[in-house]
Amino acid sequence: MSKYCFGVDLGGTTVKIGLFDPEGTVIEKWEIPTIKTDSGSRILPDIARSVLDKMEESNIAKESVIGVGIGVPGPVDENGVVHRAVNLGWDIMNVNEVLGGLLEMPVKAGNDANVAALGEMWRGGGKGCKNMVLATLGTGVGGGIIVDGKIVTGATGAGGEIGHIHIVDDEPDACGCGNHGCLEQYASATGVVRLANRKLNACSDNSVLRDAKEKGKLGGKQIFDAAKAGDKVACAIVDEFCMYLGKGLAMIAGVVNPEAFVLGGGVSKAGEILREGVQKQYQKYVFHGSSDAQFKLAELGNDAGIYGAAKLVL
Amino acid sequence: MSKYCFGVDLGGTTVKIGLFDPEGTVIEKWEIPTIKTDSGSRILPDIARSVLDKMEESNIAKESVIGVGIGVPGPVDENGVVHRAVNLGWDIMNVNEVLGGLLEMPVKAGNDANVAALGEMWRGGGKGCKNMVLATLGTGVGGGIIVDGKIVTGATGAGGEIGHIHIVDDEPDACGCGNHGCLEQYASATGVVRLANRKLNACSDNSVLRDAKEKGKLGGKQIFDAAKAGDKVACAIVDEFCMYLGKGLAMIAGVVNPEAFVLGGGVSKAGEILREGVQKQYQKYVFHGSSDAQFKLAELGNDAGIYGAAKLVL
Repeated sequence: MSKYCFGVDLGGTTVKIGLFDPEGTVIEKWEIPTIKTDSGSRILPDIARSVLDKMEESNIAKESVIGVGIGVPGPVDENGVVHRAVNLGWDIMNVNEVLGGLLEMPVKAGNDANVAALGEMWRGGGKGCKNMVLATLGTGVGGGIIVDGKIVTGATGAGGEIGHIHIVDDEPDACGCGNHGCLEQYASATGVVRLANRKLNACSDNSVLRDAKEKGKLGGKQIFDAAKAGDKVACAIVDEFCMYLGKGLAMIAGVVNPEAFVLGGGVSKAGEILREGVQKQYQKYVFHGSSDAQFKLAELGNDAGIYGAAKLVL
Repeated sequence: MSKYCFGVDLGGTTVKIGLFDPEGTVIEKWEIPTIKTDSGSRILPDIARSVLDKMEESNIAKESVIGVGIGVPGPVDENGVVHRAVNLGWDIMNVNEVLGGLLEMPVKAGNDANVAALGEMWRGGGKGCKNMVLATLGTGVGGGIIVDGKIVTGATGAGGEIGHIHIVDDEPDACGCGNHGCLEQYASATGVVRLANRKLNACSDNSVLRDAKEKGKLGGKQIFDAAKAGDKVACAIVDEFCMYLGKGLAMIAGVVNPEAFVLGGGVSKAGEILREGVQKQYQKYVFHGSSDAQFKLAELGNDAGIYGAAKLVL
């Protein structure tokens, strides 16, 4: 009898679901909306309904499902208890128990950024690694630390919160977390725009970015594109971005000494200019024992979550 | 039949050996010299001889020994292979195989700092923790990271090399590793003396430390003692020391989110002034998700290594 598992990526707007075979091939994937009314009490029943419907439609018996893994946007402890997932309206929710009860199948929950790291290790940019760090460069900076093939959850689910590593001492602006000088204030999509605004204010050199800045339309993609086209101011901004990220990843290497760093999230679409730039800066700050770490781009894009979630139960 | 295990702490000058019961009680401990002639080729045979002699003396049969754990001063991979232990004269040495062959018993080797962390978790300051970081503040700064009860070795044995995390951008002096601004340039016994010399040169305030400085006899213990006695310059130096260490440990928390930090090594004999000072500074830099971490002093002193080594095989 064939065996299956499901990987669920629960986001604030949509839930992505994948049906996998145990080797990690996606058989089918689909999405349902995340309906957050009534303190998010419909979310898990909606997911259970969708999974059960798919099983009926595809003639899959319960006995042939290994389990259902799910990534959740919030801190998740080792028993699958989510402590305050603000985006979903949840206070304390035992996902393993509640969703497991609805499905009558084994369920295992993890934090979404950590689960994405597991996905990239299994089937993406970190394939073949047992010790890997995923840095997700989006609006903020998220992270997932894999040690010996397993996610580092930490004591309170805050393992891999690399966006809030202190990296700059004299930062006047506050980070969303309340501290000053966190990595995500520089090495994110919003961070690179802040760096660009500062740079453009501090110099009067010509740059294709000035016009966009005056129109209030400066964006991360534009800055990396301008650097690729040789715009000197844009190149300096990208260098600075890579310096902060390289320095942060070197600090992380001093703790877990990974085989590879995988760069994901929207900013990673910049590609080689980012990968090479970060690796170069990393070498300036890292202890020689960790200098061999590889730098890779994430490969699974928005599907990293469903892959990693499936891997949770395998 | 009673069961036993041995824990060996291999240092550059002496080898400490402990005979344990499986609950972690030391039945007996002793030392032999580390004789490093002939590229360190006598070291493992000497250890094997000492262990076998003890077994004969105490009427312990091979069948009742669970195994022999050993901490080694150098990077050790997961198979027990040591890659260049300069202090011992070794190039590449498979300790598990060589010592295991001599003893005809299971042998498991680990890096000494990591093994000490395991000891402190098992029977010392981190008792009851599954996620813990040991910071060993000696001549340099060493570290051991425990995640889910296991040592984080890393891809090349450089896991927990926290002394070389980059912490200061504009440091003119080079660290022993060749980089500039490593944590151990500030948060070690030599680091606190550097901080004191700089402070005393930069101000003209009265301090009991001036006399010692002029005689070239300024030491870490003296600086902490002066701060305890209320010397203002010494207090400022200790504050600065704690700021660097607190900041470094906050960065580490952003990666592995431990339940507790345990402070060990010679400098940790300063006691509460250090523990409280570091915890206070840590709170300024850490992400709120990791703010509950406890700060403890190491309890096993020089015996942490034999305890942790014994735990390796249990």
